[in-house]
Amino acid sequence: RRGEMAKSTQLIDNEVFRAYATYTAIVLLKMMLMSLITAYFRITRKAFVNPEDIASFGKGESAKKYLRTDPDVERVRRGHLNDLENIVPFVGIGLLYALSGPELSTALLHFRLFTGARILHTFAYLVPLPQPARGLSWAVGYTVTFSMAYKVLKTAWLL
Amino acid sequence: RRGEMAKSTQLIDNEVFRAYATYTAIVLLKMMLMSLITAYFRITRKAFVNPEDIASFGKGESAKKYLRTDPDVERVRRGHLNDLENIVPFVGIGLLYALSGPELSTALLHFRLFTGARILHTFAYLVPLPQPARGLSWAVGYTVTFSMAYKVLKTAWLL
Amino acid sequence: RRGEMAKSTQLIDNEVFRAYATYTAIVLLKMMLMSLITAYFRITRKAFVNPEDIASFGKGESAKKYLRTDPDVERVRRGHLNDLENIVPFVGIGLLYALSGPELSTALLHFRLFTGARILHTFAYLVPLPQPARGLSWAVGYTVTFSMAYKVLKTAWLL
Repeated sequence: RRGEMAKSTQLIDNEVFRAYATYTAIVLLKMMLMSLITAYFRITRKAFVNPEDIASFGKGESAKKYLRTDPDVERVRRGHLNDLENIVPFVGIGLLYALSGPELSTALLHFRLFTGARILHTFAYLVPLPQPARGLSWAVGYTVTFSMAYKVLKTAWLL
Repeated sequence: RRGEMAKSTQLIDNEVFRAYATYTAIVLLKMMLMSLITAYFRITRKAFVNPEDIASFGKGESAKKYLRTDPDVERVRRGHLNDLENIVPFVGIGLLYALSGPELSTALLHFRLFTGARILHTFAYLVPLPQPARGLSWAVGYTVTFSMAYKVLKTAWLL
Repeated sequence: RRGEMAKSTQLIDNEVFRAYATYTAIVLLKMMLMSLITAYFRITRKAFVNPEDIASFGKGESAKKYLRTDPDVERVRRGHLNDLENIVPFVGIGLLYALSGPELSTALLHFRLFTGARILHTFAYLVPLPQPARGLSWAVGYTVTFSMAYKVLKTAWLL
């Protein structure tokens, strides 16, 4: 049994799987960064949503003015939600794709394009850059995930 | 080492895992479709949220009227968020379930029910169908995921 | 081929992977619980968002008053979204971490801290507890995920 265990954890020795692990960790860390940027804008713009978060500003009406929305905070939150909507499919489909036996070079192309596109998407959203910068970077990530899903379905199809 | 690698990527040869890969790709693609439907309604209803998205409509007050919420856009967005809340647990728990050694017929029943329920949920949300269509389709997907989690915990339990 | 299949599904025999499966199922079930709490508050506070959800309350203006937001409902929804933003990275990075060959005791420490922190986070959000209870529990989960990502990148790095 020990022998089998050792083998099953060797997944990380597979080069395509290592590339998947590297890029998945990077895009998930990038997504986690959105939480810190939201916190930064909430604190600098003094724009909070929970009464318990403004208790240190005092009580009553003088503190209540900090319970408000701020355009910069909302912009980061939209970027964060867009990350969730797009990075979740990448992580799920990407894992299946990495296990479907693609060429390393093809897999790297997919992972690099997706990761680059999502980093550009965040820049385009937060600066903000004029359209179609954000739209195009979104579309590249979307297309890459779609291409990986096609390979997964072609390889694994069992309905 | 090469030999071990080859073996570990053979996960895709396991029939339960192939079924998991197929249904996971399908539900994640279905979730990704929500982005396109949102974009379709934003463009046809002319209801945008970012100032840079309406730059092509001109400047000043005449363009600002397109920075607004629209009931159809908001409905699709709620469906998309509900997908995230329910498909993320399915993908995570489903992977562990597929690796916990279930019978193929039992696994297929779980995956088919979940996928059918989530497709129905989207129809019920977007048409919209009268309740309890949306509630029931949500409950079926929820119960299936719960059932898979029970099998995972029974098989893997190590706290 | 049967032999290889059998081996690849033995991932669940690996103790670190079993621990990952256990804690991932627990945190995903905890996240799913947020849907039920949201439904509970929507029904008891009579605060709905979809017109089809209030059809049983009758028609016209008398029913429309139930299409409203409620502070308790919105609080649970914020907790649910925060779960998505933090549990998705845990599930994705945690899987790669479990496959990167950590010591069982180290892995258990990571999984236990994260799971405990997220359960505390939900309590802190829903009661609500005074800050920094929610902030600290969030930070513990965030730091644990970051630590696992560091191990993944150190082990798998292939750019």
